[in-house]
Amino acid sequence: MDDFVFRNPTRIIFGRGAESKVGVEARAYSGKVLLHFGGGTIKKTGLFERVTASLEAAGVGFVELGGVKPNPRLSLVREGIELCRRHGLGLILAVGGGSVIDSAKAIAAGVPYAGDVWDFYTGKASPVEALPIGTVLTIPAAGSESSTGSVITNEEGAFKRALNSELIYPRFSALNPELAFTLPRNQVANGIADIMAHLMERYFTNSRPVELTDRLIEATLRTVIAVGPAVLRNPRDYDAWAELMWSGTVAHNNLLNTGREGDWGSHDIEHELSGIYDIPHGAGLAVVIPAWMKRVYRHDPVRFVQFAVRVWGVDQSFRDAEATVLEGIARLEAFWASIGLVLRLKDLGIGNDRFAEMASKCSSGGKSTVGHFIPLGKKEIEDIFELAK
Amino acid sequence: MDDFVFRNPTRIIFGRGAESKVGVEARAYSGKVLLHFGGGTIKKTGLFERVTASLEAAGVGFVELGGVKPNPRLSLVREGIELCRRHGLGLILAVGGGSVIDSAKAIAAGVPYAGDVWDFYTGKASPVEALPIGTVLTIPAAGSESSTGSVITNEEGAFKRALNSELIYPRFSALNPELAFTLPRNQVANGIADIMAHLMERYFTNSRPVELTDRLIEATLRTVIAVGPAVLRNPRDYDAWAELMWSGTVAHNNLLNTGREGDWGSHDIEHELSGIYDIPHGAGLAVVIPAWMKRVYRHDPVRFVQFAVRVWGVDQSFRDAEATVLEGIARLEAFWASIGLVLRLKDLGIGNDRFAEMASKCSSGGKSTVGHFIPLGKKEIEDIFELAK
Repeated sequence: MDDFVFRNPTRIIFGRGAESKVGVEARAYSGKVLLHFGGGTIKKTGLFERVTASLEAAGVGFVELGGVKPNPRLSLVREGIELCRRHGLGLILAVGGGSVIDSAKAIAAGVPYAGDVWDFYTGKASPVEALPIGTVLTIPAAGSESSTGSVITNEEGAFKRALNSELIYPRFSALNPELAFTLPRNQVANGIADIMAHLMERYFTNSRPVELTDRLIEATLRTVIAVGPAVLRNPRDYDAWAELMWSGTVAHNNLLNTGREGDWGSHDIEHELSGIYDIPHGAGLAVVIPAWMKRVYRHDPVRFVQFAVRVWGVDQSFRDAEATVLEGIARLEAFWASIGLVLRLKDLGIGNDRFAEMASKCSSGGKSTVGHFIPLGKKEIEDIFELAK
Repeated sequence: MDDFVFRNPTRIIFGRGAESKVGVEARAYSGKVLLHFGGGTIKKTGLFERVTASLEAAGVGFVELGGVKPNPRLSLVREGIELCRRHGLGLILAVGGGSVIDSAKAIAAGVPYAGDVWDFYTGKASPVEALPIGTVLTIPAAGSESSTGSVITNEEGAFKRALNSELIYPRFSALNPELAFTLPRNQVANGIADIMAHLMERYFTNSRPVELTDRLIEATLRTVIAVGPAVLRNPRDYDAWAELMWSGTVAHNNLLNTGREGDWGSHDIEHELSGIYDIPHGAGLAVVIPAWMKRVYRHDPVRFVQFAVRVWGVDQSFRDAEATVLEGIARLEAFWASIGLVLRLKDLGIGNDRFAEMASKCSSGGKSTVGHFIPLGKKEIEDIFELAK
């Protein structure tokens, strides 16, 4: 097991009506908050009213900033920073899914910083302070409600880049599974892919032995595999949604990578796709990950055998490890297909004309690599696009 | 899944040499701490020197209070409270196992309280503030290094009672698996029983469905079952100790009871045993839990079938649930026997002469019950002692 430091301070308020408790939580940090959200669905569903009523009951004022899009944009982040400064806001309350929360985190880090917030995403600077963040989660997927990560797209050049910092752990997150009942089917499926990707990025590691965290990841994957189809069959199945929503948080709250190094190459590769083609992150991951697996499994077939047997219940071919490995990957693909995800770039409408460009961008023009299971340079990234086409 | 609120703020510093990092951690809270420990082993092993060197390097002064015994005593807690007040100490640094940490928590809660600290353990009062606590863990067992619990024995009447409060979560805990290399075998076995007990107390629940947390508990149990015998075979197996130590924390840091009600009846019953006979808590649990299982399994055989199949790999008798249940309990007993634990009260030197007295004490003279899976009154507690004799 690798040495590690772990702390996750997010307070989780889980259950029906959780969104009506955020006023009191927010009040502990500030009397005036930025209420950050997406396309306005929350105004149609009544969620906006419940959240603002909770704020008002706690004596917390707010300034609204809606309009966050999937693959959240730097320009809106800048607007949010400006609003916080102008109105002296002391907390960002994100009401939405991963994009809204990631945008809130960027704003929170940007407000006390004299330079350009994009510096944090290019690695030019690291945040030394941030405004506190609270969330009301509406989509089980990104895990941003209790994570250190934020991913933002800079429209100038279609760069999609990530910031990781303990300073942007949300202070509190309200998780009400009922809020997911009305999600469109494709968004649910993309969310399931995203959750599973977070688990698999942690699973495929060179750190060993990592018995406990292996088993915890396998446990969470099996839960998602069990309840994912259930929420698609019956979108009002509270119990199944509760399992899926809590799995999405546990998948990405950093407990499951304690003592091990994750891979994250597939995420970096997917960011090139969604940065340029503006596809949903989960949909991109469903295409990239099986291709990544086919490219890298020979590096450590035993780990892939364990994945096949323990996660997918594959009947192990003891004399033919490769057969077991490939059956595990096939089961993953079959599962994703069964919930309506597509598995090839061409089915996302993406041709092979920009593979070289994306591989170059992802590897800083061939000068760097992504991923840890095996480091992927420009050539290997192109191989993966080819396997995914 | 039940509604829940979850937050665990403990910062875990895990790995070789972790104890040498506590000075800096402590400094963030106070310039002068109470250094709390047990029988003095830490002065023989060099641990005391490494911890105090770390404090000194960070400019943190300390006052010593050793002498914590297993089943930690209220009298020493009172002494610690007095020392903190007299010297204006701002943090309790516990160096030891669960007893030392539980004692530190009692001191931390007692210092700012005008009344008698025992009030918190009888339920007469609840803490509203507490000094911060840090720990250097030497025994994987109690999970107190990242929990809300503290158990103290009041020598006047041999009452052993628990306090639970978010205020006594340690702020930081240093976990170095090497510190466990020199533990006596019986202490290791007792620790394994304690860790498994924390997992099983959470597992046997009436809350449902609880798919994710079921699987996380099963994953942690299987890890402990795998690595427990390994550390006994080779006490210098760092990797196995690392898995066991981190499992002990995860077992009791409250993540695994999110959305479910635990039982804890066996803990309450065991507290009567160790309160009167001063046996190690883990040794008492190894006797009580199988007896508890035999008394209660008919309440929900399906849950015990799941336990047998998923945790112990029992080949399920599909037409005979009870056979599967009993095989699961037998496997637990066989595992505990294999690591040197005794399974009957008589083998701990405890006769049946005080069963009625203990059952009465545990149920407030027959007026209350313990446990949630099924509530146990005086009669049921006596049944369990009979099954354990």
